[in-house]
Amino acid sequence: MSRFFSSRYDKLTPYTPGEQPQDRRYIKLNTNESSYPPSPLAIEMAREEAGKLQLYSDPECRSLKRAAAEILGFSEDELIFTNGSDEILNFAFMAFCDDSHPAAFADITYGFYPVFAALNSVPYREIPLREDFTPDPADYIGTNETLFIANPNAPTGRELPMEKLKEIIASNPGRIVVVDEAYVDFGGESAAPLVREYDNLLVTRTFSKSRSLAGARLGFGIACPELIRDLETIRYSTNPYNVNRMTMAAGVGALKDQAYFERNRTAILETRAYTAEELEKLGFSVLPSSANFVFVKHEKIGGEALYRELRERGILVRHFSPERIREYNRITIGSREEMEALTAVLREILA
Amino acid sequence: MSRFFSSRYDKLTPYTPGEQPQDRRYIKLNTNESSYPPSPLAIEMAREEAGKLQLYSDPECRSLKRAAAEILGFSEDELIFTNGSDEILNFAFMAFCDDSHPAAFADITYGFYPVFAALNSVPYREIPLREDFTPDPADYIGTNETLFIANPNAPTGRELPMEKLKEIIASNPGRIVVVDEAYVDFGGESAAPLVREYDNLLVTRTFSKSRSLAGARLGFGIACPELIRDLETIRYSTNPYNVNRMTMAAGVGALKDQAYFERNRTAILETRAYTAEELEKLGFSVLPSSANFVFVKHEKIGGEALYRELRERGILVRHFSPERIREYNRITIGSREEMEALTAVLREILA
Repeated sequence: MSRFFSSRYDKLTPYTPGEQPQDRRYIKLNTNESSYPPSPLAIEMAREEAGKLQLYSDPECRSLKRAAAEILGFSEDELIFTNGSDEILNFAFMAFCDDSHPAAFADITYGFYPVFAALNSVPYREIPLREDFTPDPADYIGTNETLFIANPNAPTGRELPMEKLKEIIASNPGRIVVVDEAYVDFGGESAAPLVREYDNLLVTRTFSKSRSLAGARLGFGIACPELIRDLETIRYSTNPYNVNRMTMAAGVGALKDQAYFERNRTAILETRAYTAEELEKLGFSVLPSSANFVFVKHEKIGGEALYRELRERGILVRHFSPERIREYNRITIGSREEMEALTAVLREILA
Repeated sequence: MSRFFSSRYDKLTPYTPGEQPQDRRYIKLNTNESSYPPSPLAIEMAREEAGKLQLYSDPECRSLKRAAAEILGFSEDELIFTNGSDEILNFAFMAFCDDSHPAAFADITYGFYPVFAALNSVPYREIPLREDFTPDPADYIGTNETLFIANPNAPTGRELPMEKLKEIIASNPGRIVVVDEAYVDFGGESAAPLVREYDNLLVTRTFSKSRSLAGARLGFGIACPELIRDLETIRYSTNPYNVNRMTMAAGVGALKDQAYFERNRTAILETRAYTAEELEKLGFSVLPSSANFVFVKHEKIGGEALYRELRERGILVRHFSPERIREYNRITIGSREEMEALTAVLREILA
């Protein structure tokens, strides 16, 4: 830290993204990327834009809003697009949290929430998940805090039922509830239709996982028009051209190619079922998952040891060090072939 | 503003980007874009990446750092890449300004500085430019504020000589001096080599103008490694994957194709000389410009009236409303043909 760095950030510990080693080829099951390339239409539309990059992108993201409104069934003023969903999450911390509006989220959840809180000097409270890593809905009722709920949650994959989520939203009318639906397309139920009923609900989504665009950086928020305007005030005060031309076009293509999206999503659900079954046969405990990953542990080998053994054999999974989850690993659902390779290697390690 | 919006932003007025109307085809001379498409190598490399978007971009931006280090002559740890140069400027306000480190910048300069200051609750002071829109270097000596100096300045195009800039940097050893070089490639002298001499200097640059990548969103900062680490702490706490795969590749291509860059840059300088001469023949006052635009006024027609007359005839220029510059318009240097069309239309308006 230089002598110039603001003391506001004395307690800031940056987020640690999943490793991207370049020393050899790995089967990459550590960052919940899709194992399928983007839709051919998304690729084609992105390429088309590459020749026009001398011109700024549309700060209003009109083409993307039009496509999303049509395909996802919201109106354009209920949508905001960002440079990945990390950006919309940060905007939510900026817009809806401060000293008198502290944040709260689960103790085991997306690791960026406490970073955004520290970045924006927002006080926060961690709400412990139950022993089985499900949230106790009662803990979220009427807390009078800005709530961040990843649903399905990461890295656990567990989902809070919609009825319970609705009760939570209804019980905090004076505070925003952010439902982070990065993984909702893998079998979860979306809270997004509730934005017409609750003016305190913000749903965030990403094109990174189910639409195979992690490397394009595209996320969005769904909320009532008044909240969207607040978030647009932040966006226009931060980076109005935040979504570049190529990514905007890729997003439109990915939305329009719903058949491709459905096919991959279904394949991932099938491979998840296959993977869970194979891992259980090998003696793993596998948490029920509504996401494109499984969270697993094995009583014969520690979490970090397993991570290392797999890495040595060319397979990357994600290990987290916090006490409560350090015996686990989060394994992204790749292609059927990748998961077959994984189970073969696990069999070898456990032998 | 919703009832949930943090009172931190009570005084925040978002930035207004140049208009992007879609009602008809315009000759666009209002946002300082290049009239030349990106380098064919940049386009090709961006297109190549479009097929790999299911994978996250490299948060360390290694390919881009390597290319920039090689071609621009800095070391990799003196460089940081961002989603446009607005993002690095915002990071600088975050990292190096706070209640006890107020900011200062010219009264007539890039309109985003006061927005970033308000966004980050940073007190700031505006330093009036002289009557001829040049800064008085004495006003910047030993001020003990974090200084933001656009050099060449926008929208004036005027440049502060390097000797003066060096004195300013040397006179504020306890505070950061940010030199915003968005337009430096159009005839300005860069302060970047001084980062080896001064640990309080941050130079910011963009690929938007001279490298024809406005729509790709790519900016960067040059500073001593210690300052770069501070800025990386902010980046990794905000959006570690801020630069997408396609833009990263386009940036590498644009850097490697130096011949293309030089050719366009030279063409723009020639067209600027032509434009200034033609406008003066028509009776315009044209400020000396070291940028890819000219800042002009005419005693026979007001700034806003001229802007409107041009717009009606299909030519967009940028008009700003502040008192001191409202008789002026900022006109981007387009292609020779576009500038010939402009002078023809101006002749018609003035007749």
